[in-house]
Amino acid sequence: MAGKSSRRRFLEATAALSGALTSCQRAEGPEEEGPRRIGKPLRAYGERSEFEKSVRALPTTKILEVGQSYTPLAEIYGIITPSALHYERHHSGVPTIDPATHRLLIHGMVERPLIFTMDDLRRLPSVSRVCFIECAGNTHLGYGARDAPTVQLSHGLVSCSEWTGVSLSLLLSEAGVQPGAKWILAEGADAAKMQRSIPLEKAMNDIIVAYGQNGEALRPEQGYPLRLVIPGWEGNVNVKWLRRLKVTDQPYMTRDETAKYTDLMPDGTARQFTFVMEAKSVVTFPSGGQKLRAPGFYEITGLAWSGRGRIERVEISTDGGGTWQDAGLSEPRLPMALTRFRLPWRWDGREAVVQSRATDETGYVQPTHEALVAARGPHYEYHNNCIRPWRVLADGSVTDVAG
Amino acid sequence: MAGKSSRRRFLEATAALSGALTSCQRAEGPEEEGPRRIGKPLRAYGERSEFEKSVRALPTTKILEVGQSYTPLAEIYGIITPSALHYERHHSGVPTIDPATHRLLIHGMVERPLIFTMDDLRRLPSVSRVCFIECAGNTHLGYGARDAPTVQLSHGLVSCSEWTGVSLSLLLSEAGVQPGAKWILAEGADAAKMQRSIPLEKAMNDIIVAYGQNGEALRPEQGYPLRLVIPGWEGNVNVKWLRRLKVTDQPYMTRDETAKYTDLMPDGTARQFTFVMEAKSVVTFPSGGQKLRAPGFYEITGLAWSGRGRIERVEISTDGGGTWQDAGLSEPRLPMALTRFRLPWRWDGREAVVQSRATDETGYVQPTHEALVAARGPHYEYHNNCIRPWRVLADGSVTDVAG
Repeated sequence: MAGKSSRRRFLEATAALSGALTSCQRAEGPEEEGPRRIGKPLRAYGERSEFEKSVRALPTTKILEVGQSYTPLAEIYGIITPSALHYERHHSGVPTIDPATHRLLIHGMVERPLIFTMDDLRRLPSVSRVCFIECAGNTHLGYGARDAPTVQLSHGLVSCSEWTGVSLSLLLSEAGVQPGAKWILAEGADAAKMQRSIPLEKAMNDIIVAYGQNGEALRPEQGYPLRLVIPGWEGNVNVKWLRRLKVTDQPYMTRDETAKYTDLMPDGTARQFTFVMEAKSVVTFPSGGQKLRAPGFYEITGLAWSGRGRIERVEISTDGGGTWQDAGLSEPRLPMALTRFRLPWRWDGREAVVQSRATDETGYVQPTHEALVAARGPHYEYHNNCIRPWRVLADGSVTDVAG
Repeated sequence: MAGKSSRRRFLEATAALSGALTSCQRAEGPEEEGPRRIGKPLRAYGERSEFEKSVRALPTTKILEVGQSYTPLAEIYGIITPSALHYERHHSGVPTIDPATHRLLIHGMVERPLIFTMDDLRRLPSVSRVCFIECAGNTHLGYGARDAPTVQLSHGLVSCSEWTGVSLSLLLSEAGVQPGAKWILAEGADAAKMQRSIPLEKAMNDIIVAYGQNGEALRPEQGYPLRLVIPGWEGNVNVKWLRRLKVTDQPYMTRDETAKYTDLMPDGTARQFTFVMEAKSVVTFPSGGQKLRAPGFYEITGLAWSGRGRIERVEISTDGGGTWQDAGLSEPRLPMALTRFRLPWRWDGREAVVQSRATDETGYVQPTHEALVAARGPHYEYHNNCIRPWRVLADGSVTDVAG
């Protein structure tokens, strides 16, 4: 129902655009042709055009072997993130792993400890799934929620790929999980030896031991040759360069689930094992750092996602939250995948505050910044999914709203 | 109904695999760890691993400024083709076009001839769609249908991307199509000045004037900065490096719709304007040039597609067409997109002939080689969608069936 209504309103808005293309030129006749020159030859492996310059944003620190780089969300199209621009996050650099010698060990509370080569894994029944991965630290409170200069820096730690691999449940079934087992420990082959504990229930549900990304092998920065893909859960548990899975009866309380990736709440307790990334959205056009050339028609567009399933609705406000209208949602709308939203907009040349609000199929509605701070207090750091407004100034420039 | 039935049979086949993973090693204990070394730093634009070597197959001719290169279908995962491995086909090399100076002209039988810059186009309401593009000459009769040594050479002129751009119908509506108009002529900016005539009815339906591919700008080989994407229709009409659209009342009878991309039929007439790519599928594992290491469990997998809509069913035979069983179809199954199929298989070590047969949502069933030859005679060249068998020899090697 919501979908139909949204679609109808979107079509009406598009119809309103008709006849209003003021920016394109009227042609007097056929364009002059340049001289014809033979082009470049066929080649074995393609690259992007020399005119394309989009890059991941790197941190300003000198040491680049630990940290994160951000996907240029304002410069990408559709829902698939180009693998070359998928965000990065690592703690000791990107390891170089020869797939011919890489092994995956499954042990602990299992009947049959097993070691898999990459060839073993590629021979097994496979699954593919388009889903997002988002760093739990994306849109840090205080830097990103309201005052980051660009959407790349405020929201660029989310990306979406088509992942291919083997169901973890199949591997665990082969190893034979023992009674009493409740968790698994996943460990990476990076120098920092990334470790995270994952509830067995999720492991037996939809986790993928992935070797493919967007049709190719995983990119090195995304865990080549093997990683976990855990649909809808924070990026940190999607362990990359995966070398070991140990079945246990309790979580391991590793560094990244105690000192990091937990949040101090106002009552002194800590939120821990906050795996699910809740519904979130952001407008990527118009967004900080962009400039509208003149009043007239534009398309407001952006991305929405939820770790609990499909995006059901995205609303747009251009008046600071006073009024809202439904955006069109591009198909396919896949659960736990980025969803592209679009709304035609006529900018009248006056200051405007533009923002989006997502609702997922569970009915959960993306909260405001104020609501999140009220619920979690001033010290929380992770899982910030609040609404992100952008201010369009009268000169067409777009900035944050914190100033 | 067919979907449910197919799914149930697939699950039964998967269940049969349980406990049969004979290839992986039993582990004695945790694997030895190597020394820990810091990895590579964050970087602005990623590349694939140095261990990955998949490439497009180039022709063996000396002149590479005209011809085609083939996607390595046996080495890719899922349904999205990596842009770097998308097949190529051009007649005068890949032009280098500066998007800042590129223009699209719409003229002919229109009320308002218009010229669009790339900025104009990117400002308009946009659409995204995952769909395949297949060269009409893919799987040439006599070379590809039965005797090509690999699936890359027999079927590698099909690829699938998420395309983003503007609806052609929107641009034509803005220009104002005059009464009596029935066709459009699309022209590329390559030196060969590629030209094709397209019925106006299709142009007003689902054609995209595309600038995005898999999240980035189009790759140069796929028409940077602008191309037509015509869902379900032969690759040749998806004009790349698009510079001009002329609205007319009849087709232009260009070289590529008269001397080429037509087929001589047994009765002496020529099939012309055979736009739609009909339902087709191919097994990519096991396929020619691969080798099964030993008897045991494998996954038969491959790709299916139809220019008339969704793939509804894919059947697999491992006994030369004597018996068939349904493969599992991976979601999302999108109309006019590649669909991945999979079936667990126990190879008993004896010679086997493996093939797939696709049915689309219109009920159309992929024909055999013999049926196509009977219908079209020995001289036809394009639109060969026949079933493609592979022979697995007792030593595990996989070859064509023509020998």
